[in-house]
Amino acid sequence: MKARVFVTLKGEVLDPQGAAIQKGCRALGYDAVRAVRQGKLFEIELDADDESKARQLLEELAEKLLSNPVIEDFSVERIEP
Amino acid sequence: MKARVFVTLKGEVLDPQGAAIQKGCRALGYDAVRAVRQGKLFEIELDADDESKARQLLEELAEKLLSNPVIEDFSVERIEP
Amino acid sequence: MKARVFVTLKGEVLDPQGAAIQKGCRALGYDAVRAVRQGKLFEIELDADDESKARQLLEELAEKLLSNPVIEDFSVERIEP
Amino acid sequence: MKARVFVTLKGEVLDPQGAAIQKGCRALGYDAVRAVRQGKLFEIELDADDESKARQLLEELAEKLLSNPVIEDFSVERIEP
Repeated sequence: MKARVFVTLKGEVLDPQGAAIQKGCRALGYDAVRAVRQGKLFEIELDADDESKARQLLEELAEKLLSNPVIEDFSVERIEP
Repeated sequence: MKARVFVTLKGEVLDPQGAAIQKGCRALGYDAVRAVRQGKLFEIELDADDESKARQLLEELAEKLLSNPVIEDFSVERIEP
Repeated sequence: MKARVFVTLKGEVLDPQGAAIQKGCRALGYDAVRAVRQGKLFEIELDADDESKARQLLEELAEKLLSNPVIEDFSVERIEP
Repeated sequence: MKARVFVTLKGEVLDPQGAAIQKGCRALGYDAVRAVRQGKLFEIELDADDESKARQLLEELAEKLLSNPVIEDFSVERIEP
């Protein structure tokens, strides 16, 4: 089973590097780019009998090992059999 | 308009840190975790008239500014109006 | 002129990924590893007349563009002519 | 004992995000910034009897767990007792 865990800074946490990249986009002529925020992505393969168990495991992993809940949000997506 | 750009190491490129995280998961009792690979995630807000233009812009950005095509793949997802 | 800017999570901010890597190290037999924390590193080349000006510029960059002062510390090191 | 491991992309490997940050610096008025390259930094605490053993352990860790030798270089610095 395959899944993706996304870890992003909470909305109220500044991301100055993302802002610098956004300025860089505009400096290179991509004026339409209004905001850029950086996050982390984890592609995870796991042994799991059923999708709901897998999702529960992934949420536990994401919460405890892959993110800092004080400053980051996470989401689990794209479970593939 | 909002979108996510995912940047991941190409399949043939080793990700030792991802492997270390996988070992860490197992050491903490998450034996079901077979593989972990780290990637990058960019959340992008942009001004765009229509989705196909936005997607084209995002693919250009992803290819030229956000990834190194020699070692990384990218994909554009979750366009929201 | 060349320098390195280091950006690290403040001591009181948890780094669960770093902790997972530490567990991975131990699982691979590196029992001596007591703690791992992840940070960011920027190698910067800049035009500058003298080192003290360069250092001032780098500290401004580090504070405003490369780090989030609420959750991260930075330091500037290894200025080379 | 405390040390820092630096992991940087090899010189011949493009770093488009670093380049975007450099453009962003210039767009914000920091014209002196000629190049920016992103790297990773690991702060490691370890039990070790003597510095030469510690350094050897850290180089092994850096080479096997923290970097991909095909695309990245590493260095070990700032050992503190």
